Amino acid sequence: MKVVVLAGGVGGAKLADGIARILPPEDVTIIVNTGDDFEHLGLTICPDLDTVMYRLAGVANDETGWGRAGESWRTVSEISALGGPDWFRLGDLDLATHLVRTHLLNGGETLTAVTQHLCQKLGIQVSVLPMSNQPAPTKIQSGETVYDFQTWFVQEKWQPSVTKVILPEDVRATRSVIRALETADLVLIAPSNPFVSVDPIFNVYPIAALLEDLPQAIIAVSPIVGGTAVKGPAAKMMQELGLPHTSRAVAGYYGERIDGFVYDVQDAGSCDDLELETRCLDTMMHTEADRIRLAQEIMQFAEEMLRD
Amino acid sequence: MKVVVLAGGVGGAKLADGIARILPPEDVTIIVNTGDDFEHLGLTICPDLDTVMYRLAGVANDETGWGRAGESWRTVSEISALGGPDWFRLGDLDLATHLVRTHLLNGGETLTAVTQHLCQKLGIQVSVLPMSNQPAPTKIQSGETVYDFQTWFVQEKWQPSVTKVILPEDVRATRSVIRALETADLVLIAPSNPFVSVDPIFNVYPIAALLEDLPQAIIAVSPIVGGTAVKGPAAKMMQELGLPHTSRAVAGYYGERIDGFVYDVQDAGSCDDLELETRCLDTMMHTEADRIRLAQEIMQFAEEMLRD
Repeated sequence: MKVVVLAGGVGGAKLADGIARILPPEDVTIIVNTGDDFEHLGLTICPDLDTVMYRLAGVANDETGWGRAGESWRTVSEISALGGPDWFRLGDLDLATHLVRTHLLNGGETLTAVTQHLCQKLGIQVSVLPMSNQPAPTKIQSGETVYDFQTWFVQEKWQPSVTKVILPEDVRATRSVIRALETADLVLIAPSNPFVSVDPIFNVYPIAALLEDLPQAIIAVSPIVGGTAVKGPAAKMMQELGLPHTSRAVAGYYGERIDGFVYDVQDAGSCDDLELETRCLDTMMHTEADRIRLAQEIMQFAEEMLRD
Repeated sequence: MKVVVLAGGVGGAKLADGIARILPPEDVTIIVNTGDDFEHLGLTICPDLDTVMYRLAGVANDETGWGRAGESWRTVSEISALGGPDWFRLGDLDLATHLVRTHLLNGGETLTAVTQHLCQKLGIQVSVLPMSNQPAPTKIQSGETVYDFQTWFVQEKWQPSVTKVILPEDVRATRSVIRALETADLVLIAPSNPFVSVDPIFNVYPIAALLEDLPQAIIAVSPIVGGTAVKGPAAKMMQELGLPHTSRAVAGYYGERIDGFVYDVQDAGSCDDLELETRCLDTMMHTEADRIRLAQEIMQFAEEMLRD
């Protein structure tokens, strides 16, 4: 079965890793949100791509969920001392990724080619694809203020309440993203933030139309567990955007975009009467064993759905 | 006495430091070659400015003469692992300078303003000025091949023989460089490479004309000691450009541009009959004490010259 995972950062990276560990690499493609990407200190930084790559390569920081294991902070400490911007915590190992990426992009390579290069060097066998080669910056509107995504997310610690998520127009998917979706048997929407991780992917032309037209199964995994987000601002944003902060509301938000929905045992029963296939599972992925188990259970759910 | 030092990298930094340690900071300006500057991994790197700043700030690496003391190499090692270009050894502390500089330049500040910012953060009190705010890349011609300076200097380890040093046209000095030269009582040409450290400064309009017209004393310190360069390719280049690799030939090369010449005790007697003021001194600057002593002796020479 050919599987595509639509992934944001930490939750997406973990589910992608579980799937990558149980399927042949040629059957797995991870399409990653690049709406968070930004230019900082002259470098092109792709936080979600990096989180996914580091996790798949087995070099992720298990405590934070993002960044590199065994990271050090000499450069960013010195940036502070020199009066430079230090709000985005660039680790010494992480910096190498941004420098090599920027170098290759400046040389005219596409983000897709650069990502392939980095994955190959990191020993990643599954296919990791940016959703687009074009810049596709997500912006956050809070009342009268419009924030660049990382300014809101990191510098403002996602505290300004969200009035609207502004996604760019006219962003196009790459040929390899389209091909992966056209040939997929199953598309998994990772337990990532629906508004700022998943919607930016659907916003890329023609991904939403492709997913609507094609016969493959689409299963979303809820990022909300017990009324809160496992990580990040998803629950807070749901409230601010006028939705209940529940798994059920996530399923409702995805609506007709999905065929199946996986939600956590902490919310058992809450999604029983939804008009789509649901499966209540332990979705918490603390360890590698958790990631593998959840991936296996989701694949079993998908196989049952596709058999019917 | 208001003193301007024209400086390249290591030798220039050491003489600048000696002068800075014996004169009031408001009387000292260091004008630094930026012909070596280049873009690397998306960053603007100014090797001579950095070498001068680190030395004046007391954070220079005493063993190498360039880079930071207590440097580490985590990022560049990871750049290697990721298949990026690792020929230019970027230390973790050094990287912070390049990142902050690039950030400020991208924000629209001039290289002069950025250098002032970095100097202030590094606690440097004398004035350090890039020779120009414009890019002024030196190129090295070797037979049919024209190298970017750092490609020749670092990547090729200055081995390809030099047919010609190519300096850019139409580079202009900054207002602050012109003001410093107009008000100087003494201009010192540091023991830097005449072709790739000093000539690029003279090449910046209107520095050569200013120095020719104005009444101040101009003293050069020989970078050649005992027939070899204290550091770098100066002696090798002299041979390749058809000059004897001697202090005497350095004085001849500077010709009417200088009023006085300081050369090393190892070459005692070799410059006695030159038609300019000369002083034979111990010019080797291994320690801080050496730098202070040489600066004092040069200032004494200058005072005697200016009295006459």
